[in-house]
Amino acid sequence: MSLVDFVATPKFEEYKERFKQHYKLERREDGVILVQAHTAGGPIQLSVENHRSVGQLFKTIGADPENEVMIFTGTGKDFMMDADPEAYKDGRINVSSLVNDLEIPTIGVLNGPGFHTEICLMCDITICSEDAIIFDLHYDIGSVPGDGIHSCFLELLGVKRGAYALLTGQAIDAQKALEYGMVNEVVPRDRLLERAWKIADHIMTQPRITRRLTTQIIRRPWKKRITDDLDGGFGIQMFAHLAKKKSIHSRNHIASSIAYVKEGKKNNIKS
Amino acid sequence: MSLVDFVATPKFEEYKERFKQHYKLERREDGVILVQAHTAGGPIQLSVENHRSVGQLFKTIGADPENEVMIFTGTGKDFMMDADPEAYKDGRINVSSLVNDLEIPTIGVLNGPGFHTEICLMCDITICSEDAIIFDLHYDIGSVPGDGIHSCFLELLGVKRGAYALLTGQAIDAQKALEYGMVNEVVPRDRLLERAWKIADHIMTQPRITRRLTTQIIRRPWKKRITDDLDGGFGIQMFAHLAKKKSIHSRNHIASSIAYVKEGKKNNIKS
Amino acid sequence: MSLVDFVATPKFEEYKERFKQHYKLERREDGVILVQAHTAGGPIQLSVENHRSVGQLFKTIGADPENEVMIFTGTGKDFMMDADPEAYKDGRINVSSLVNDLEIPTIGVLNGPGFHTEICLMCDITICSEDAIIFDLHYDIGSVPGDGIHSCFLELLGVKRGAYALLTGQAIDAQKALEYGMVNEVVPRDRLLERAWKIADHIMTQPRITRRLTTQIIRRPWKKRITDDLDGGFGIQMFAHLAKKKSIHSRNHIASSIAYVKEGKKNNIKS
Amino acid sequence: MSLVDFVATPKFEEYKERFKQHYKLERREDGVILVQAHTAGGPIQLSVENHRSVGQLFKTIGADPENEVMIFTGTGKDFMMDADPEAYKDGRINVSSLVNDLEIPTIGVLNGPGFHTEICLMCDITICSEDAIIFDLHYDIGSVPGDGIHSCFLELLGVKRGAYALLTGQAIDAQKALEYGMVNEVVPRDRLLERAWKIADHIMTQPRITRRLTTQIIRRPWKKRITDDLDGGFGIQMFAHLAKKKSIHSRNHIASSIAYVKEGKKNNIKS
Amino acid sequence: MSLVDFVATPKFEEYKERFKQHYKLERREDGVILVQAHTAGGPIQLSVENHRSVGQLFKTIGADPENEVMIFTGTGKDFMMDADPEAYKDGRINVSSLVNDLEIPTIGVLNGPGFHTEICLMCDITICSEDAIIFDLHYDIGSVPGDGIHSCFLELLGVKRGAYALLTGQAIDAQKALEYGMVNEVVPRDRLLERAWKIADHIMTQPRITRRLTTQIIRRPWKKRITDDLDGGFGIQMFAHLAKKKSIHSRNHIASSIAYVKEGKKNNIKS
Amino acid sequence: MSLVDFVATPKFEEYKERFKQHYKLERREDGVILVQAHTAGGPIQLSVENHRSVGQLFKTIGADPENEVMIFTGTGKDFMMDADPEAYKDGRINVSSLVNDLEIPTIGVLNGPGFHTEICLMCDITICSEDAIIFDLHYDIGSVPGDGIHSCFLELLGVKRGAYALLTGQAIDAQKALEYGMVNEVVPRDRLLERAWKIADHIMTQPRITRRLTTQIIRRPWKKRITDDLDGGFGIQMFAHLAKKKSIHSRNHIASSIAYVKEGKKNNIKS
Repeated sequence: MSLVDFVATPKFEEYKERFKQHYKLERREDGVILVQAHTAGGPIQLSVENHRSVGQLFKTIGADPENEVMIFTGTGKDFMMDADPEAYKDGRINVSSLVNDLEIPTIGVLNGPGFHTEICLMCDITICSEDAIIFDLHYDIGSVPGDGIHSCFLELLGVKRGAYALLTGQAIDAQKALEYGMVNEVVPRDRLLERAWKIADHIMTQPRITRRLTTQIIRRPWKKRITDDLDGGFGIQMFAHLAKKKSIHSRNHIASSIAYVKEGKKNNIKS
Repeated sequence: MSLVDFVATPKFEEYKERFKQHYKLERREDGVILVQAHTAGGPIQLSVENHRSVGQLFKTIGADPENEVMIFTGTGKDFMMDADPEAYKDGRINVSSLVNDLEIPTIGVLNGPGFHTEICLMCDITICSEDAIIFDLHYDIGSVPGDGIHSCFLELLGVKRGAYALLTGQAIDAQKALEYGMVNEVVPRDRLLERAWKIADHIMTQPRITRRLTTQIIRRPWKKRITDDLDGGFGIQMFAHLAKKKSIHSRNHIASSIAYVKEGKKNNIKS
Repeated sequence: MSLVDFVATPKFEEYKERFKQHYKLERREDGVILVQAHTAGGPIQLSVENHRSVGQLFKTIGADPENEVMIFTGTGKDFMMDADPEAYKDGRINVSSLVNDLEIPTIGVLNGPGFHTEICLMCDITICSEDAIIFDLHYDIGSVPGDGIHSCFLELLGVKRGAYALLTGQAIDAQKALEYGMVNEVVPRDRLLERAWKIADHIMTQPRITRRLTTQIIRRPWKKRITDDLDGGFGIQMFAHLAKKKSIHSRNHIASSIAYVKEGKKNNIKS
Repeated sequence: MSLVDFVATPKFEEYKERFKQHYKLERREDGVILVQAHTAGGPIQLSVENHRSVGQLFKTIGADPENEVMIFTGTGKDFMMDADPEAYKDGRINVSSLVNDLEIPTIGVLNGPGFHTEICLMCDITICSEDAIIFDLHYDIGSVPGDGIHSCFLELLGVKRGAYALLTGQAIDAQKALEYGMVNEVVPRDRLLERAWKIADHIMTQPRITRRLTTQIIRRPWKKRITDDLDGGFGIQMFAHLAKKKSIHSRNHIASSIAYVKEGKKNNIKS
Repeated sequence: MSLVDFVATPKFEEYKERFKQHYKLERREDGVILVQAHTAGGPIQLSVENHRSVGQLFKTIGADPENEVMIFTGTGKDFMMDADPEAYKDGRINVSSLVNDLEIPTIGVLNGPGFHTEICLMCDITICSEDAIIFDLHYDIGSVPGDGIHSCFLELLGVKRGAYALLTGQAIDAQKALEYGMVNEVVPRDRLLERAWKIADHIMTQPRITRRLTTQIIRRPWKKRITDDLDGGFGIQMFAHLAKKKSIHSRNHIASSIAYVKEGKKNNIKS
Repeated sequence: MSLVDFVATPKFEEYKERFKQHYKLERREDGVILVQAHTAGGPIQLSVENHRSVGQLFKTIGADPENEVMIFTGTGKDFMMDADPEAYKDGRINVSSLVNDLEIPTIGVLNGPGFHTEICLMCDITICSEDAIIFDLHYDIGSVPGDGIHSCFLELLGVKRGAYALLTGQAIDAQKALEYGMVNEVVPRDRLLERAWKIADHIMTQPRITRRLTTQIIRRPWKKRITDDLDGGFGIQMFAHLAKKKSIHSRNHIASSIAYVKEGKKNNIKS
């Protein structure tokens, strides 16, 4: 017997409570945990507070050995189409926590249109609703896409499609996302969670060690990608922010910049 | 004149005989060699013996300077849908030999459904029959896909589609494989070899040095991929095998795990 | 105040004149520069002289801080389908200048069929005409595709499609190029420049620092690719050229090698 | 004002208490935190419990924005020369937490001879006592050095010296470690902490953002290294453990395997 | 004969004149060019003007095919120990031009103590005077070492020594630089140029193609390094500059920050 | 029981005979194999025949599962200081076979001065005689160091020392090689083999799986290096050879080019 004890790991009931302002957490007996991000019970509104909470949550879930598969989604009909009231924070922790701190398989469920979709897209498996629209707003609000969205788009779309999407604000709809290989399945919104649970059920058919080690295999490209370009990309993004000396990421600014998405246009190029 | 002689290289007639239990070998006068893998004259049944022979064969073909292009295929209507009676062996040698020991262009001909299709898919050019189905069974038999299939799927499908295929046993049919860029052409089964010879004829229109150096150019991504993730992937796979302490890869286990493919289902997720 | 002066940068009027035999240059007041490559006022005919001028031009444009976005295209109905009278030169400077010496966003406009299309394809954004055909002729003229076209095709197509295209001379038409992710938009030829200016207008909506730093983000994969395989690829290509001891890249040789493209065939494999 | 609150970060007084069985924690007002690892108040004895606590601690320290520089050391005259009573655990979390979860500069203080010194050696700056001896015992206890020590030795020593040290159990003394570039300074043991504080003082002369961003720059090689070879290396190590089917890492086994170090021999090769 | 002419390359007499405020240029008949950087005829004083001229010069020398080997040095007893009156500019062009735009072998001659020594250290071969001192001042003036000095130090010193040198302002003298592998030879100052010419003579013993292709081989690590970390590093550096909102790089600031070097101290840690 | 048999592996007695003109082979009962390369019983004289045999031998030894550790050395007082009568061949197979085809630990024993020492230096462990001198002659015979020696020198020496050694023919003696980390031990010549056997004895103390998997760990940097730069490097070398259109590697040419080594000079720069 050892002279010392294990340091305790986090308990679900405790962190379910602690994170409740940002996430609704549920966990099945078998360890499949469902994370529904929300703002005031509705669709996520980007804020400094919730931006920071993403990494905090993933690190906590990853530190609890009783979690076995994570399903991550938003709330309501949009994934993220608003800001509360404005936001800027180091977003690196979000993608790096998703990729490095969670050893368990992850399923991203994109429940509608949104920006900062990289959290769903960088899960191991991703499904989306039929009305989901994926786009990046950084360039159009005068910012540089360097806080992880670039790692995500360039990895999934390759350099040619990635550059176009990041420069033009291309609004990629669900069918196009499937064709491009950004998502694995397109599912009616009201059946999204049902489908996610089925996928989790399948993953749970195999032993714990198989699940966790398979995750290491399939996630290696993401680990390599963010090691390669996340720190530097974020530095470049912040350099641009500060050099421009103008406010960005404000609620109004975002609203006007993404109007074309709501209008159903394919990109933000004026025709 | 040198004080010493060249060490002899392998002779076709000798190794044709030596490998005949596993491969039917034919070679045209121009050096295009056709390799038809078989078990007892029919479709390949995975065994320790044939698993090991793949690398042995490729190293031998690569050491004979009279070989100029290799066409590799299976036998009958399946590529590999059975085991004899069970198998486990270091599969790294198979993909590493294909990529490193053969300086000549290679054409993979996937003659039907199968697992361990990486040998066909990692040839420089790949064609498949209209009824070919590509899938990985490792996860579903409780194993970790780390013996080369992961290098193959992640390279050809990218991280998003690759993760899904490896976790869900996705049965990728010929048309989808073409759309995904896993194969170059889909051809009726009875015209597969005819087409492969035509492609080889085209390759043979150029001088030997052009053929071999072009091969270095087009194969570089494969060399980089397996250097990056093959040794470690296999270590992870074996770690899982041993840690689970249960028999796998047995004939019955494989049969039950791939039943959904024969039933025409798209993946192994229970709906 | 410093003890020393700035060293002068190039002036548009001067280099517009200097390069006029090879390029028609126009620049808007906002710094968007249009480069129309030509030979004697018509489609580009590959020559040692123009091959070398590409890198010289890009370095000059890159050194002038008044340039903000570059649109690059050919002239007439072909991009490059002829040689004048033959050509061989280190092509590395062309792609390396495009990627390393230009900090500004670049838009490639492929105005018709052609070989050595990598200059358009490796721009940040690429559009092409409806009748554009992309193919590589190196293998079919007995050469090794190693002077940058391999970096381009392997990056955009991946290893499987890239190997096939490089070995078989696959003639990729505009729709297939769009499906494969080699181009971003297909546009009627007579509206190509209009569309390119619109895209440039969109890019110009953001501040200079945003434009230039976003370019660093989206171009990183190209920088990595050419650092990885350009010098070595070119060495391999030249090795093959010299070892074959036969003339290549002559006008007649090229003409006969690309006849199948003009005839509308999909690749150069004899059926 | 946002609709939501920040999720709370860890508080020093709380985690100082929580980790006290494994670490003595002190923090200056300026945020420099001193971590002294111990077992029952004396030198560290490797156990499953403390092996796991390393990553738990680093993640906690990294999550508290009030920490600014970390000094990490052991206790007493040895760094780690004993086991309690035996230990085996996934050590990846230790080095990955050190490198990825701590954004602040780290100073490793190797207070004497030890195995698993990678925790001190992979800090940004490392100093050691005059009697420190660095060696790896994995090979000599029948294990494979793949749990992070290999990332450390191969990064610091290069492939030639690294292979030798890992295969022969080379006992690298303080002067040799300085010559090899494994440590930055050699200091009498009783002045080690004083020197570490001085180095921390120097680092604290610059603003917080300078400290944290400089850390990103200098730590990039470590991030790249462990992304490259940690998961796979650990898989290989575990594969070997399980395949050998014999107990290792037991207290007696370790004691006999490292006897040569205590006897002052340079390596474990019998002369 | 081609329809078009070559675009002219730069002429030595022209650019010798154009750059004379910053560099004294001499060229032997065999094409060995000596570049002596100066400010007002004495040691280099860092200014925006000369910082920018470095890349301009290297690109010009690289574009002139009559240059065969470049010797680069400073003037007088210091390499660079002063600023005129202050400077900040994108330094990426300096190291990227040195590495990418010059195909010819380069010999760096460090003629005394200095900061921003990366220009000499990243030449293919480097010699230094007996009193040369290499150090980085970025951290100590509140900046982040990310404009190329980090690429240089981390490549030459490795992660452990590099981190220490960048964080502590370590003053590396000539003998230590030789021991660390930062320079190839230490030579009395008055014999530096004589030695550089001898080395150039040796390089010139081989044909032009051997010289230029050997340069591609030996410079590959530098090309890879700066592709990997230069753009991102500079972004991070600028992020810090702007975020700190305080003036830096001023003449007085630099003078006080490097006083310890002039006093002969080994680093900037207060003892 | 399987339907098929294993394909036979090579037998020691057979290949001992087959390779005897080039190598004296001995194998202990425990599987440690000693390879002594020779030409007519004396020091190796480089020829096309023996250059090619290196890879053939390593592939054969690697294919025989009864080999457990390989000791590789030359014969007599030189390692390789002569040519018979001249030689040129693709040397890539030598280093790639050493690194990829041998899964067993390798010990290089450099028995005296020589060129093409990469075969000894790229073994996992390397020892050399007190009078060994390591140098590269490629540049000085007008060739480009690209056939593996560059992979070796740049990996072991880093970019700065590597460039100098490759450009100047630096004659690195045993003590300097030890200081530079090119060799692990310097031993009197008459005790070299005795020491090699001792090291092999130590390696043999651990189980087969530990030996082979540890080899995967320690050899990874070599695998990565040659995948990165061997094919391209060789292409560049051959490009230069053919472009120069002059005979090289002749016996007399080599003899005159390495005279300075025999004269005890440090490099080939005329003073």
